[in-house]
Amino acid sequence: MADAEDIGSTMEMIESLWILFLAIVFCSTADASHCSIDGLPLVRNITELPQDNYGRPGLSHITVAGAGLHGMKEVEVWLQTFAPGSGTPIHRHSCEEVFVVLKGSATLYIASNSNTKYPGKPSEFRIFSNSTFHIPVNDAHQVWNTDEHEDLQVLVIISRPPVKVFIYEDWLMPHTAAKLKFPYYWDEKCYESRVPAAKDEL
Amino acid sequence: MADAEDIGSTMEMIESLWILFLAIVFCSTADASHCSIDGLPLVRNITELPQDNYGRPGLSHITVAGAGLHGMKEVEVWLQTFAPGSGTPIHRHSCEEVFVVLKGSATLYIASNSNTKYPGKPSEFRIFSNSTFHIPVNDAHQVWNTDEHEDLQVLVIISRPPVKVFIYEDWLMPHTAAKLKFPYYWDEKCYESRVPAAKDEL
Repeated sequence: MADAEDIGSTMEMIESLWILFLAIVFCSTADASHCSIDGLPLVRNITELPQDNYGRPGLSHITVAGAGLHGMKEVEVWLQTFAPGSGTPIHRHSCEEVFVVLKGSATLYIASNSNTKYPGKPSEFRIFSNSTFHIPVNDAHQVWNTDEHEDLQVLVIISRPPVKVFIYEDWLMPHTAAKLKFPYYWDEKCYESRVPAAKDEL
Repeated sequence: MADAEDIGSTMEMIESLWILFLAIVFCSTADASHCSIDGLPLVRNITELPQDNYGRPGLSHITVAGAGLHGMKEVEVWLQTFAPGSGTPIHRHSCEEVFVVLKGSATLYIASNSNTKYPGKPSEFRIFSNSTFHIPVNDAHQVWNTDEHEDLQVLVIISRPPVKVFIYEDWLMPHTAAKLKFPYYWDEKCYESRVPAAKDEL
């Protein structure tokens, strides 16, 4: 009987260690991302992916391929629609960003003044269906649907996800006062705010 | 007069050094890329960008945002059209790649066997308008327009440009025999073949 008891307690110990191991694995995974890529099909119908405005009126955001959602490590792709009179905040990030305009027209405001105290008056560019542009790293910028009638639909590509965004209240706010929003709105479900953000260059 | 001559020869020396400096800068830039981003507008009309088939029947390739062409360092975006009965070679790369299908339908062949000697029989997936998929790093794959009538149009996003592609003749070719094509077809104008390719993991 002593032998059986020994085996029983050894089994219990192994079971406890296994539970401890699973708990550690779970916690360390949860630290990085609360989302799971298990069971997601390789080919996905974009029109069936979850979309949300994340509390921002006029926005529809879909993460087409994401770090938290789909396990991407180096690039992330979003499909975004902005109703007339809506757009992004004035913001900057140290990742690369490319836009492909699928529908509509709008205005890109961009201030290439990362070596001055604040962005200052931005340059204005008209963006339109079938146009493309990229945002130079760390340039403060804003995309705003200045059209009165038509939605703006863009594919957005960023490098080094998840994105770490610094938001300005206006173009005269000092770079150092811009507020880090991390995780960004659509990453909140997948990332803890206690995950340290990457160092910013400004 | 001697003083004036001294100044003259000093000026000549400074001028020579300046020319030498410019030559060094030019040569080191030319090593990396023969393309220039000077003078390119920030917002570009994709329909006006150069497109080519690079000797591959049925292909139309446009570099929407590229390393050599537009100074991208972390991501690159292509717009590609494949006529019925055309597609990519069987190939692999160690960068991330995301596809967004804009028009048409086709077949994705993919063999997730980077730990075996050769890719082997690939899995097949139907891809279609408004679908998206990504290629796991180093998986051998091929996109082929298996539709009889309609063109396939895709936006392709890769990380870590310029792309270093290893091409297979068939699915039974050993990974180690796959042939490096660098610079890739559309990068040939911008990159010298003597630029060392990144180390491959296989």
